[in-house]
Amino acid sequence: MAHIDLGLDEKTHPGINGPMLYRPETAKPLNELAEVLLRTPHPTLTPGERELIAAYVSGLNECAFCCSSHSAFAAAQLPTGMELVDQVRRDVSTAPVSDKLRALLRIAAAVQRSGREVTADLVGAARAEGATDLEIHDTVLIAAAFCMYNRYVDGLGTWAPQDPEMYARSAEQIVAHGYHAS
Amino acid sequence: MAHIDLGLDEKTHPGINGPMLYRPETAKPLNELAEVLLRTPHPTLTPGERELIAAYVSGLNECAFCCSSHSAFAAAQLPTGMELVDQVRRDVSTAPVSDKLRALLRIAAAVQRSGREVTADLVGAARAEGATDLEIHDTVLIAAAFCMYNRYVDGLGTWAPQDPEMYARSAEQIVAHGYHAS
Repeated sequence: MAHIDLGLDEKTHPGINGPMLYRPETAKPLNELAEVLLRTPHPTLTPGERELIAAYVSGLNECAFCCSSHSAFAAAQLPTGMELVDQVRRDVSTAPVSDKLRALLRIAAAVQRSGREVTADLVGAARAEGATDLEIHDTVLIAAAFCMYNRYVDGLGTWAPQDPEMYARSAEQIVAHGYHAS
Repeated sequence: MAHIDLGLDEKTHPGINGPMLYRPETAKPLNELAEVLLRTPHPTLTPGERELIAAYVSGLNECAFCCSSHSAFAAAQLPTGMELVDQVRRDVSTAPVSDKLRALLRIAAAVQRSGREVTADLVGAARAEGATDLEIHDTVLIAAAFCMYNRYVDGLGTWAPQDPEMYARSAEQIVAHGYHAS
């Protein structure tokens, strides 16, 4: 049970959905930020790649709800589906992603530990693989944002379903309609 | 120098101001979230108290720019000014704040480490001092949000002025006009 009374049934509103309905004033910018970072057309990073960064950081933060959700959202939008998500989460250094995306994922992992862990070397390595300023900016902000969403979801003690089907159904909604207040 | 070319002079746009101008699409929800969490009228937590939570978490994350900024913003809006901010940052257990605010600051410190560190005991202790569900919710989200802002500012390697006068001038702007895209 969540740490506060969200005024709804957690089984129908698991994870972040409960707090989002509880406090619509904060849900609005939280949804808008996710929409811009993960779904709004981007010159070079696909929605699947951006969701992969979100899933990876959520896994590092051990946030079960966010990691399952964004893994499903990434899988639904990547040609190679959940297999690639699992490979990235298991070992970035051997996962079959481009060297540019691998370098961006390494920046995301540094952000997850602390902003101060992002070194000029990590940024230089991404740049050497062709990463643009916008890709580096968005990678840092996606990773930072999930350090927020993950703490929000777990800090309120919300419930995370175990059934993968639930997350696959959410993915269909996100792919079709994006991040909006429910 | 920042890790990416923000296209502006960091001396006139230090810390988060550079990335905010660089990417207005993400600046909009980031500013709106700060405005709702820290400035929009709240039934029980004053802007000064909410800024104090932001400053405290930014200090724990060792984010110089955010900690100096929100310490100044808190000081400008608390009757006891910077002395109280310094006391809280030095030792929450002895700082002259209400026992309710002390319990909320302890929840914020847990969130800073990980959402999963927020225990039923910490929440129960806050509730025993009279904390409401909304206060607990907002404390968790303020702390979580500053785990994002801090990583955004430091993950991009932005510059933090050392002159306290600069932060005091920013505080005047924030108190008068709030968080909006510059």
